[in-house]
Amino acid sequence: MPAVALEYLHTYTLIHDDLPAMDNDDLRRGKATSHKMFGEANAILAGDALLTIAFEVLGQVEAQAPHPPNQMILELAMAAGSRGVAGGQFEDLASEGREPDPEQLEYIHTHKTARLIRAACRMGAIAAGAPMEKLEALSTYGERAGLAFQIADDILNATSTAEELGKAVGSDAARRKMTYVALYGTRRAQERAEALTDEAVAALAPLGSRSEPLIALAHFMVHRTS
Amino acid sequence: MPAVALEYLHTYTLIHDDLPAMDNDDLRRGKATSHKMFGEANAILAGDALLTIAFEVLGQVEAQAPHPPNQMILELAMAAGSRGVAGGQFEDLASEGREPDPEQLEYIHTHKTARLIRAACRMGAIAAGAPMEKLEALSTYGERAGLAFQIADDILNATSTAEELGKAVGSDAARRKMTYVALYGTRRAQERAEALTDEAVAALAPLGSRSEPLIALAHFMVHRTS
Repeated sequence: MPAVALEYLHTYTLIHDDLPAMDNDDLRRGKATSHKMFGEANAILAGDALLTIAFEVLGQVEAQAPHPPNQMILELAMAAGSRGVAGGQFEDLASEGREPDPEQLEYIHTHKTARLIRAACRMGAIAAGAPMEKLEALSTYGERAGLAFQIADDILNATSTAEELGKAVGSDAARRKMTYVALYGTRRAQERAEALTDEAVAALAPLGSRSEPLIALAHFMVHRTS
Repeated sequence: MPAVALEYLHTYTLIHDDLPAMDNDDLRRGKATSHKMFGEANAILAGDALLTIAFEVLGQVEAQAPHPPNQMILELAMAAGSRGVAGGQFEDLASEGREPDPEQLEYIHTHKTARLIRAACRMGAIAAGAPMEKLEALSTYGERAGLAFQIADDILNATSTAEELGKAVGSDAARRKMTYVALYGTRRAQERAEALTDEAVAALAPLGSRSEPLIALAHFMVHRTS
């Protein structure tokens, strides 16, 4: 159930981020974006409905002790709202055309992307009743791997093709967005993504050999080509 | 806390409903609407953040027995999402310019407005641990009074002034929206609102004299001038 809620929430962020008033993207995963297919009003409403149903799904499950029953709802709300995705997207749009600012870039990437991936890791741990030490390990993993994921996204936007990526490329530069590539160049961005991946993997030590799928996932996220 | 959550949720619906892609309203409560003040992207994000924080607030409280702890979250989600406000708004926009259809009108008004007022009544009862008989009474009250409220809204849009109402008037007719006034005329709309108010008040019988403020509220909702 937490996975379903996260899928709904993630789809909401994609639909709203693609809107004409936001990133104005016509293509997503090789298909026309929601507002191109169904109109802007319906895309906004579809996002609203997906955001709502994410919480409805979580209202039907309880976390396992030692976590409070409602903890997953709080985690998702913190990752989604003004202190999460919506706050990150606000800064992202506000940053367009501004002077490069490493602190603002970190804020945008952390809030727009890393918080949600971190929440996904935490919610899985909370649903399963993981002890606090493992929850913390997974939090750090999610945060670092999530940031690495967004840096890889910046790199792909600058270096890939629309055909390979299934969405527009070069749009960050065209909109003068504050990205890792814009601030540090492709090579240093790649190095930072690798370093963050190493930190993510190192954080998993308390989980022992059971963390192998998560290690593979962290590597996949920065070496993906789409 | 349920009242705070409902206030957040209600504000989200107003901000998103006013958007250019939706009802495209410039004025609300006598002031410029959110997208006029802060731009369309920020208005969308503000609505998203308010919708999110409504659930976050409810994640911090528990319903009283005999209701399950998470019940208020489920109530709000059902009132807000595709089976509530977002679904009603979808049909509302889809109805513009269409042939009058009493069934579709009922669907729009019930989902766009009455469900949320009904949820407000139910959530108060659930927070207080009201027995099922009283919960049902308050549900019926909220549904009927909520529908009456929306009919009164239709009438005000057709008959009031922008100065008195603090928002645009005549916009329903201009957009060829499906309203009670459009389908039945002002007089029959008024009669229906009165009849629904009577039903709402009658439903409160199990609550005895403690229901007096709710009776006054139901009358206020249909006799208001703004």
